[in-house]
Amino acid sequence: MSVGKIVCAGLGPGDPDLISVRSDRVIRAARHVAFFRKAGRAGQARSIVQGMLRADAVELAMEYPVTTELPFDSPEYNDLLAAFYDDWAARLADLAQREDVVVLCEGDPFFYGSFMHLYTRLQGRAEVEVIPGIPGMVGCWNGTGQPITWGDDVLTVLMATLPEEDLLRHARASDALVIMKTGRNLPRVRRALAAAGRLDEAWLVERGTMPGQRVARLADVADGDCPYFAIVLVHGHGRRPEVPE
Amino acid sequence: MSVGKIVCAGLGPGDPDLISVRSDRVIRAARHVAFFRKAGRAGQARSIVQGMLRADAVELAMEYPVTTELPFDSPEYNDLLAAFYDDWAARLADLAQREDVVVLCEGDPFFYGSFMHLYTRLQGRAEVEVIPGIPGMVGCWNGTGQPITWGDDVLTVLMATLPEEDLLRHARASDALVIMKTGRNLPRVRRALAAAGRLDEAWLVERGTMPGQRVARLADVADGDCPYFAIVLVHGHGRRPEVPE
Ligand SMILES: C[S@@+](CC[C@H](N)C(=O)[O-])C[C@H]1O[C@@H](n2cnc3c(N)ncnc32)[C@H](O)[C@@H]1O
Ligand SMILES: C[S@@+](CC[C@H](N)C(=O)[O-])C[C@H]1O[C@@H](n2cnc3c(N)ncnc32)[C@H](O)[C@@H]1O
Repeated sequence: MSVGKIVCAGLGPGDPDLISVRSDRVIRAARHVAFFRKAGRAGQARSIVQGMLRADAVELAMEYPVTTELPFDSPEYNDLLAAFYDDWAARLADLAQREDVVVLCEGDPFFYGSFMHLYTRLQGRAEVEVIPGIPGMVGCWNGTGQPITWGDDVLTVLMATLPEEDLLRHARASDALVIMKTGRNLPRVRRALAAAGRLDEAWLVERGTMPGQRVARLADVADGDCPYFAIVLVHGHGRRPEVPE
Repeated sequence: MSVGKIVCAGLGPGDPDLISVRSDRVIRAARHVAFFRKAGRAGQARSIVQGMLRADAVELAMEYPVTTELPFDSPEYNDLLAAFYDDWAARLADLAQREDVVVLCEGDPFFYGSFMHLYTRLQGRAEVEVIPGIPGMVGCWNGTGQPITWGDDVLTVLMATLPEEDLLRHARASDALVIMKTGRNLPRVRRALAAAGRLDEAWLVERGTMPGQRVARLADVADGDCPYFAIVLVHGHGRRPEVPE
């Protein structure tokens, strides 16, 4: 019988003032705090809660495996990653036998969050609670100072890692667009939006709601400038007049 | 020169514990609090902040115009609605000359929010700040206890008020779906999802994160049962293995 539980706390887009009241309370009270990060980095999630943790909090940095031999998209690297998630799921489940653990997750945990790889593995092994958060994209469109959607607008969320023809097809079919995981995929995103006739309406928001936030028209961003922590947005224009329901 | 400003505070999906730390602080300190509601109703936004307002807070209920003569989707009703927004924009701009006003908005204000009708009218007339919130859909998918998207999933957000062929086309083209403004449009949503072969994967979440939350398989919901404050969800299955970036 376990006495502890695992709470995954959604952190929102980056500004600690945009964390929910519940996540804020849970994070400040936590004795054990786990978060993903790349080896050698502070970690985005950990940085957001800087100054919020208890002095005696035990930190568990879950560092993604690195290897110089394997490409990131090889089956071998995927096996390594699966073993990494297996290992951490086992460690967290074990800890939760005795104590509560808080896992930090950027944005909303159930929206393209890495936590889901632990979540599926923890089913039946520990009590798990997930606290929703403001997704990163919401912080980003707030930064543009315009509604992303209204009326009957269709909004499509795409990963920039998709094939160019998929990006193009959805860019044509949707009123508003959110494109995440930009980075080195940005040139492809730009080509797809240009082909769909929507490049001039597109915005790039880097580090939304965080120190150093940048909001720029995508057409004005230099070709070699490919920030990873950025989102591309195209606003909807309101499909037809709205009536209160 | 105005000394006050208008702050639109995103409220999140409904549970007051899911309001952001910043919105929570602003709402508790507010002297003037405005919110939309239907005539004769408490108002969803106002209900969420029950117990949070200052004892001396002045409440401004912005009641949608009602008329028994005009259908809700007629041009005449739309004119009435435009006049209503004009009037409230003028009143809030005037008040903001002297004092701060907080406008409550469910979910995230820039995501299909009615506030945008005031926001566009207030440009250049008052200082306006918008605080993001957790969109209602995020609270709803949290209620299903499953990630809505992972890997390279495509997510499309649709209004149930769209024509059936549009719903069908997007239901076929997207991995994950969010369908809002259900109510009397639910039978059409059901037909479109059935035609796309996705009815059996669909969930209905009513009053997500609120007292009386209901999470049901859409296929099990009776035909005449058409809750307005509900969202239909279809989860993605992860388009391909994810690698850390
Ligand atoms: C794996 S997704 C994480 C999604 C997260 N669970 C959420 O709800 O936002 C990572 C991507 O989110 C985007 N992103 C998240 N927050 C952001 C922010 N504050 N500014 C810019 N991009 C952001 C970037 O495109 C990044 O590649
Ligand atoms: C005009 S939209 C308001 C969107 C809001 N700005 C947001 O970010 O969620 C109203 C629709 O949102 C959906 N909705 C919002 N919050 C919800 C909740 N907690 N539970 C169920 N449906 C919700 C319903 O489909 C409703 O018809």
